Amino acid sequence: MARSDPRHGLCLGIDIGATKVLAGLVDSRGRIVARSDRRVHQNEGPTHVIGAVLDEVRALGPEASRVVAAGVAVAAQVDPARGTVLYAPNLRWRNVPLGPRLARALGVPVAVENDARAATWGEWKHGAGRGRSDLICMVVGTGVGGGLVVDGRLLGGAVHAAGEIGHMTVVAGGRKCSCPNRGCLEAYVSGWAIGQRAREAARADPRASAGLRALAGSLARIDAAAVTRAARAGDRFSEQLMHATGEWLGAGAVALVNVLDPAHLVLGGGVVEGWPPLVAQVRRAVRSGAQPPAARAVSVGRGKLGSLAQVVGAAWLARDRVAAEGANGIVESAGA
Amino acid sequence: MARSDPRHGLCLGIDIGATKVLAGLVDSRGRIVARSDRRVHQNEGPTHVIGAVLDEVRALGPEASRVVAAGVAVAAQVDPARGTVLYAPNLRWRNVPLGPRLARALGVPVAVENDARAATWGEWKHGAGRGRSDLICMVVGTGVGGGLVVDGRLLGGAVHAAGEIGHMTVVAGGRKCSCPNRGCLEAYVSGWAIGQRAREAARADPRASAGLRALAGSLARIDAAAVTRAARAGDRFSEQLMHATGEWLGAGAVALVNVLDPAHLVLGGGVVEGWPPLVAQVRRAVRSGAQPPAARAVSVGRGKLGSLAQVVGAAWLARDRVAAEGANGIVESAGA
Repeated sequence: MARSDPRHGLCLGIDIGATKVLAGLVDSRGRIVARSDRRVHQNEGPTHVIGAVLDEVRALGPEASRVVAAGVAVAAQVDPARGTVLYAPNLRWRNVPLGPRLARALGVPVAVENDARAATWGEWKHGAGRGRSDLICMVVGTGVGGGLVVDGRLLGGAVHAAGEIGHMTVVAGGRKCSCPNRGCLEAYVSGWAIGQRAREAARADPRASAGLRALAGSLARIDAAAVTRAARAGDRFSEQLMHATGEWLGAGAVALVNVLDPAHLVLGGGVVEGWPPLVAQVRRAVRSGAQPPAARAVSVGRGKLGSLAQVVGAAWLARDRVAAEGANGIVESAGA
Repeated sequence: MARSDPRHGLCLGIDIGATKVLAGLVDSRGRIVARSDRRVHQNEGPTHVIGAVLDEVRALGPEASRVVAAGVAVAAQVDPARGTVLYAPNLRWRNVPLGPRLARALGVPVAVENDARAATWGEWKHGAGRGRSDLICMVVGTGVGGGLVVDGRLLGGAVHAAGEIGHMTVVAGGRKCSCPNRGCLEAYVSGWAIGQRAREAARADPRASAGLRALAGSLARIDAAAVTRAARAGDRFSEQLMHATGEWLGAGAVALVNVLDPAHLVLGGGVVEGWPPLVAQVRRAVRSGAQPPAARAVSVGRGKLGSLAQVVGAAWLARDRVAAEGANGIVESAGA
């Protein structure tokens, strides 16, 4: 692929999820000019996923040959300096040198980042956070991730593990999380937790949950998508489940606002897309529950880029890094 | 007072608490070369407190005349650019132009900062955080405050309200806090909350609490100082109260480590000084409960400067600002 001034060329953004790979060509103004997605099978491993990415790049058409850099967002703990996926629980990957492998396959520098942090960067640069000094993103999907922009920089932390807002304790000693802890935000508001809570509640109250069970097909098939679909259709039982979700999400948002005093708080991810009233509920919780100065200062809103935030953010991180380090810097580190 | 190169002169650090004013002369290596403290009456108002500060400066002796700048730490929301105390609940001050008034009285530039943030800066520059890239301080006293150093900068936030770690929700819907929220960390682990919890528990179990009640003088006089004193003396009932305190403090620490991935977490304040086993308990909670990469990376320890962290930090903030802006910069803003 061509190498040219990264300020003008297109960048490729790739979002690798547990079941889907999404790719987009992002121009020098942060707009997606072409996109493609395809399903991948969980557990197929990196070679299969990299093959799917290459198929997608071909599907993006001739413009893809103008790409000057690529960014990859993965639901994982990553080492961005080496482009390594350290641990991706949903993909069951450990220590995969994704950046170097993709860089060889694509012939351009590749940046690798955690998906929630990539989404945060996308929203900050070209979405809801544009023009703000700082930003918190809460990404509520199957899991709960997040990202923090402070003074114009994406917060990395000591070992690039900052932003794990899903694992803030909101109910000390509470529900078991997927992590070693109990009472994490994720154990209440994530997609998996909503499904779990809904099945428990449905089992405890067969009569009230009849509508949700019918919509899902059976009690065992109730998941967060079914709950939000039923709530949108006016099912009272599901609305109550989502209202409780909003209470916990609001508690987490209050904690973040009190600790970080951000200018803007963005809510995104599949659960928020599935039940948008969460945004107003969290806004009310922050207004009434956070410390008054920070509560007055912060605005709370939905992401503007939706499920494409990761693609835009990953592409933009690649562009930023090529601009900062020069193409050789990343190619070398990517190929190391 | 003399004006000279702030890199060499002494700076004055002042810690204004609800009942005590502490002042110290801090040299160019961060050491306290003279100190003084005196009690002030809560509710006496700023003129009284400023008078007490001037008395203390005189008590510090002739060296005080070599001071090139002064920093003040107050348990308050402050506007450091204008040197204004916006709201100090314990002192019942609102919108007090403390910096300009002290600058006129002392004849040197004055910097004003929140006390927990000042303590954080002191520990980072000359205490437990020295040499670390970043740091979180949890200051557990009558209330719970905190400060965050990220990439060598004290995090201010959008309206200089960052670091309110006492108001992270750790038990959604839990105990009423002094703030508009419920279930805040402060409502469980602060001095006032420990006293409240202890009195409730003593009322519920007169037999088990006999030792604590005897030590305090009466049930109504049980406070956090009595609980930690009794716990240190081996009183089982008080030890259990402090163990529960550590569980909640650990939950808050886990949340902070997961969100911010700091290199170092410092615990300080009167409650921690009163019951030092809290440090090991929080360390264990972080090791076992935080996300593994961040849990492995962070060290957890006690502050090194104790109750003088505010004095050292306030003096150093004044020094930093004079060095950055020149003495005139602060004098002008302080005198505006």
